[in-house]
Amino acid sequence: MTGDRNQAAPNSDSVLEGVLRLSRALLQAVNGSDLPGVMGVWSADGLLMPPHHPTVRGRMAITDYFEQLFRLGRFVFEFTASEVEVASDLAIERVEYRASFFPTGGGDPSRDVGKGLHVFQRHPKGEWRLVMDIWNSDYPLAASSRPDGA
Amino acid sequence: MTGDRNQAAPNSDSVLEGVLRLSRALLQAVNGSDLPGVMGVWSADGLLMPPHHPTVRGRMAITDYFEQLFRLGRFVFEFTASEVEVASDLAIERVEYRASFFPTGGGDPSRDVGKGLHVFQRHPKGEWRLVMDIWNSDYPLAASSRPDGA
Repeated sequence: MTGDRNQAAPNSDSVLEGVLRLSRALLQAVNGSDLPGVMGVWSADGLLMPPHHPTVRGRMAITDYFEQLFRLGRFVFEFTASEVEVASDLAIERVEYRASFFPTGGGDPSRDVGKGLHVFQRHPKGEWRLVMDIWNSDYPLAASSRPDGA
Repeated sequence: MTGDRNQAAPNSDSVLEGVLRLSRALLQAVNGSDLPGVMGVWSADGLLMPPHHPTVRGRMAITDYFEQLFRLGRFVFEFTASEVEVASDLAIERVEYRASFFPTGGGDPSRDVGKGLHVFQRHPKGEWRLVMDIWNSDYPLAASSRPDGA
């Protein structure tokens, strides 16, 4: 589990590629404030686990969450590291991220640096979907609550 | 992935039990400020991902982290929900927790409620070990930085 290379069982390169494609689609959709794009990656029974917020359960609640977020501002998310483990119908991607958030209507952007886990599951028809997403900030508590995140 | 029952492939009950036993051992060791107990659950190349702190990488750094934490005070951690997915040599436990932290030398305890993921991996000799642990608070940012966490 050390290092940032992608690990997978032999002959599962296409599975690994599929999972990474889904992760990139999520990133692109979040950065594009593209709600259908985000929800196309999520499983219907997904669990979104944001910091300082209760778990958001299932398609309707996750849709509401992102809809509100995209109304509040625009994200520029970047994964600075990604490591994937695939085991049968489950895949875990560990990411490290750098993010900026530009509030709607202007104002200072807030920034964050942190880490997270994406859990993907292969559904009966063979398609992979995001079932869990959890992350947290590397910034100390006092600093991360400041608007500039510095 | 909905509900709080434990899910596993058929005939993997003993794997599931092994993973849950490991998770209970971790909880008991943390609550007992038992450093060898905690480190007996962790893989040598584990990644501890605490909120508002950079990722803690590998046995030496994780040992230092818990040693310092146990010097600062005593934990009472409780998992209020646990759901395990096992796939081949990987297992993911989603937990919801309630925690109190009693500072060494007295002072008001701090409290937290949140959620997290434990990732376990089966090692070549067959034994399961914790390879990743990430969690975050349900409390809003302002509240969770207050000493009583209320």
